[in-house]
Formats: sequence, structure tokens, C-alpha cells
Amino acid sequence: MAGIREVAKIAGVSAATVSRVMNGTANVDEEKRRRVLDAIEQTGFRPNELARALFKKSSRIMGVIVPNIENPFFSELAKAVEEAAYQAGYKILLCNSDDDPEKENMNIQMLVQMNADGLIITTNCDSTSRVLLDCPIPAVIVDRKLTQVAATAFIEADHYKGGRLATEHLLACGCRNIVCMRGPLSYSSGQQRYQGYQDVCAEHGMTERCIDCEYSYEAGKTAALELLEYFPEADGVIASNDMAAISVYKMLSKAGKRIPEDIQLVGFDDIKFSSLCTPELTTISQPIHDMGALAADIIIRHVEGKEYRKENVLDVRLVERETTIRHMAE
Amino acid sequence: MAGIREVAKIAGVSAATVSRVMNGTANVDEEKRRRVLDAIEQTGFRPNELARALFKKSSRIMGVIVPNIENPFFSELAKAVEEAAYQAGYKILLCNSDDDPEKENMNIQMLVQMNADGLIITTNCDSTSRVLLDCPIPAVIVDRKLTQVAATAFIEADHYKGGRLATEHLLACGCRNIVCMRGPLSYSSGQQRYQGYQDVCAEHGMTERCIDCEYSYEAGKTAALELLEYFPEADGVIASNDMAAISVYKMLSKAGKRIPEDIQLVGFDDIKFSSLCTPELTTISQPIHDMGALAADIIIRHVEGKEYRKENVLDVRLVERETTIRHMAE
Repeated sequence: MAGIREVAKIAGVSAATVSRVMNGTANVDEEKRRRVLDAIEQTGFRPNELARALFKKSSRIMGVIVPNIENPFFSELAKAVEEAAYQAGYKILLCNSDDDPEKENMNIQMLVQMNADGLIITTNCDSTSRVLLDCPIPAVIVDRKLTQVAATAFIEADHYKGGRLATEHLLACGCRNIVCMRGPLSYSSGQQRYQGYQDVCAEHGMTERCIDCEYSYEAGKTAALELLEYFPEADGVIASNDMAAISVYKMLSKAGKRIPEDIQLVGFDDIKFSSLCTPELTTISQPIHDMGALAADIIIRHVEGKEYRKENVLDVRLVERETTIRHMAE
Repeated sequence: MAGIREVAKIAGVSAATVSRVMNGTANVDEEKRRRVLDAIEQTGFRPNELARALFKKSSRIMGVIVPNIENPFFSELAKAVEEAAYQAGYKILLCNSDDDPEKENMNIQMLVQMNADGLIITTNCDSTSRVLLDCPIPAVIVDRKLTQVAATAFIEADHYKGGRLATEHLLACGCRNIVCMRGPLSYSSGQQRYQGYQDVCAEHGMTERCIDCEYSYEAGKTAALELLEYFPEADGVIASNDMAAISVYKMLSKAGKRIPEDIQLVGFDDIKFSSLCTPELTTISQPIHDMGALAADIIIRHVEGKEYRKENVLDVRLVERETTIRHMAE
């Protein structure tokens, strides 16, 4: 078995330099560093400290895998995880998956290999669900409900209640022709919000009006054009989320519709921007910060062998701002 | 020297199970996994494959360390790095630093220890500069210029030109009392944009009017209130960036100012949101996507031993939208 001295001899450097390369802390020039790495490969030398770091039970790293870091919902969520993790002495690694199962799996493997203490993931993919089933580290699924997966824990907002609240609020504001721009039905969030809308429609004998709308600015634009074409009578809109709502506002304004006078508009999420844009957006507020903090807390509790709740449905609430107006009903 | 069989024996599992734990790929129950990890620690066993992965020359991982993932400039930048990296078979790890040197250093050490092929960082901190000086992996500094650091490469937009363009455009729109909400002067971006503003002021004999304004929504709000108090004569504003500009728009509107009729407004960055908000924001466009793609390309070229340019100043351009209006000058 090769020792550090043999590696140093082959690389033509001191043992201290080999150690510095291994620990990655001090200044070693690139040329020397390559020679040391070559010598390590040649000799099959296994440095103690790194191997130990790799196998110690807690790496104090948690991974966060989100579908789209450009969606403020996810960057706000990641920031909340990071803050809670940092308080407890953990680092986070953030990965973007584009909802692509290949990227998701690649990122999960990478986190497993670096012995992360857990991963927090928003996924909707069947193949990823299977990977998670075999995943040796705890996985907290956030913002999606996967029926077939035995994840460590689930965290989700009450999307059904959110769908109901949005529809009931538009009714209370006097709307009678309410269009639901529903998110992807393959996501539990899209499905449950839509179910809430449907139930309120049924209870009030109101005709359902639906347009499919992914969670993005672009989808909001397209959905707004479809609304103008297919539902010219619309007096209320529930956008799939705040990003879409912001585009819907823009497109409807350009088409000469006044909001809230002609059409009232409700978003979903309560990203920071929804209260910064003009007009401020009425929306269903998800407790984004609490969801991120809870996800971090569950991983930490898992590491420490403490108890935690497996199924977590967090409450949502209506935030009334400037794109809806109650006195219109009078 | 312990072998895999000895580890298996002590843990009371098969050698195949030890291998599965080491590779982190297949389903091993938590109880067995802990026994294997304990046995590995006890015996001092150094598994070949992981040690090899740790020391192979390219881990195909690049790290991205940004000060604030909630700032769309950085989430768009990270997304661009990720796309370019993925095309070339690399994964990215994204770290949030809050401009906190302790977090920066912690993240750099973590990336070095996992043998990342390089790191892309936006930092402004002296102690981080010293860490980078000793950093054994290539570091590309984006959006900041650090004078004392021998980084692998620098990528920055032409902030000086941006500051000039914004000021000249407001002049061309008829503004004569232009307030510069300058970003932090400790950042090269803030300093250079301000210098551009100062030079145009001097060339046109125009009085300088400055308010300090960090790169955030909150800072934009405060700066707008200061503007109303100290510069009631203002007819043009250059916001520190688009986030701040969006808040400035909001606060000035609330105070009864019409934009662009009473005060014209220019942002900086051209984040996606600047063309989605209402009214659309006139801004100085940084090539955010190109900057991210170039950063990834430099790391890849470094790994492959190819040439790359060390100092990269990318061009900026004025994007005229709805918060400024040229015919006001007539």
C-alpha cells in the first residue's frame, strides 16, 4: 500500500505539498497539483482525511432540486431552505432540473455520492419517483404530491382550499363568468386548485370555463390571448400562478381591458413581486418561507434521529390587493 | 489493510451490499447502511471507486456562488451557466452567499473538496479574494472586478458605458435634473456606472444629484422616498438596477408622479421581468445569458487545456420601453 511519502517522491514534491493538494486548502501551483494527482492515481494511494470526510455520517450538506430556478417561487423557497440550513450549520447545494428526469436523476446521484444528509425536491416524474424509492438518503418532496413514492416527507400548500378561495373571492367581487387558467393537471397543485374551482362552480350553478396554462410568463401570455378569443364574456380570471397572472394583466391591458373594472384577476403563490408590481396583484398566498424552513428542519431532524411529521399540508390565505375589488359587487 | 469482505463481515451484510452503500445507487435499508458505514469507519477501509472519483481529474461539476439567488439577475445567470454546462456534460452546484465572506469561504472549500472543475463567483469581499488566491481550482469572477486577485478570468458588462447610455438617453428625452441612484461604490459595477453618469454630467454642465441605493426592492423604496424629499425638481432617474427601478416606479406613482410624463425612469440589467411589468421598463441591457454561457465555456476550456480570454468586458445597450419617452424633448 502506497503512502504519502511515495506519492510525494513520484510527484517530485514534498509530503506537505501532497497533503495540501489533498486538503485543497493552500496555494499549490497547477503544474505541481497535476503531478500530485497523477501520482495518486498511479500509486492507488487513498488519503485518510478525504475518505473519512466522505464516510462520516453527516456531511452537513443538503441538496435542493427545483424544476426552474427562474421561477421566483423556487428561488424564494431555496433561499428559505438555505437560511434555515445555515442556522443549523448546514450548507445547501441547489440544482436546476428543468423538470427533465435525466437531470433530476443525475443530480440525485451526485448528491448521494457526496453523502448529502438529505435532498429536497420538487418533481413530478415517474422515473424520478422510482429513483427516489431506492434513494439511500432522506428525500423531502415539496409542492408536489406523489402517490407511489415512500418519501421521507411531503410538504405542500393546501391547493384545494386555494382554488376555492380564489373562486369564492371573485364571486364575492361580483364576477359571474370566471375563467380558470388551470396549471398542469399532471401536478397535484394544478389538479387540486382546479378541483377547488370546479366545486365552487357546482355549488353556485356557474358554468366552468377553463384554459390550460403552465406555470410561466409565456404560458400566461398565450392563455390571455385564448381568453380574449374564447371567453369574451369573462369578468374574472384565476391565473395558474403569479408569473402567469403578471403576463395576463399585461396582455389584457394591451387589449384595452381595464383591471379590475372590466376583468378581475387573482394569482397564486404570493411571490415577492406580486406586491411590488403595479397594480399589486390579488393572490392566494402560499407560505413559501415556512415550506422551505420546514423542509430543512425535517432533514435536520432526520439526521439527529428526532421525530417529524411525514405529511405536511400548509394553510393558504387570500391576499386582496389591486386587481380585484369588492365594491364592484354592490 | 481492510478489504471489502472484512467490512461486509463486521457489518453482517454481503460484499455486494457494501458496494451498493459505497456507490449509493441501489436500495439499502437505513439500518444496514449505518452498519456498513460504521464498519468502514472501524476498519479504515478505503473504497477504490469513490477515492478514484474523488481524484480523477475532472469531476464534471462546476460551482456557481452568487450573493442573492432571489435577484433575477443571478437566477438568470445561473440558469445560463447551467444550460451551457449541461450541453457539455457538466453539472452545476449553485450556492447562495448573501455577500457573507464566511458563507463564501465555506462554499469554496466545499467545492474544492468535491474536486469541482471550477467555480464561478460574484464576490466583492477582501477575505474571499485572499481565499481565491490560494484556490486550487479555476475561478471565474463574474459581474465584479477585483483588482488584487489573480482569478482565472473576469467577466463583466461595460458598466461605464451603461452609466453613460442611461444618462445620455434621459438628456435626449429632455430631462435636465437627473438623479443617479447609485449602486454600492464598493462594487465595480456601482462605481463604473456612477463614473459614466458623472462624466456625462460634466460634459453637459449638469449638476450631479446622487442617492445611494443597494441592488434590491427594499433599497429602491427607500431611495424613492429620499428622492421625493431631497430632489423634488427631479425629472429623470437612473435606478441602481431593475429591481430597484420597479420599486421606484411604485413609490413615485403612489406619490402622484406620472411616469414618464413627470419623471422618466431607466433601470439596469434587463432582467426578464423588466419587459413583463406594466409599464415596461426602459433599461440598460446586460447580456446576462452570454455572460453565464461564457463563464461555463471558460471553465470547460480550462479543463480541456484550451485557450480562453482572461479579461472579458461585454457590451451593453439601451432598451427603450415605456418609462421614458423621446418626444417629451420636443
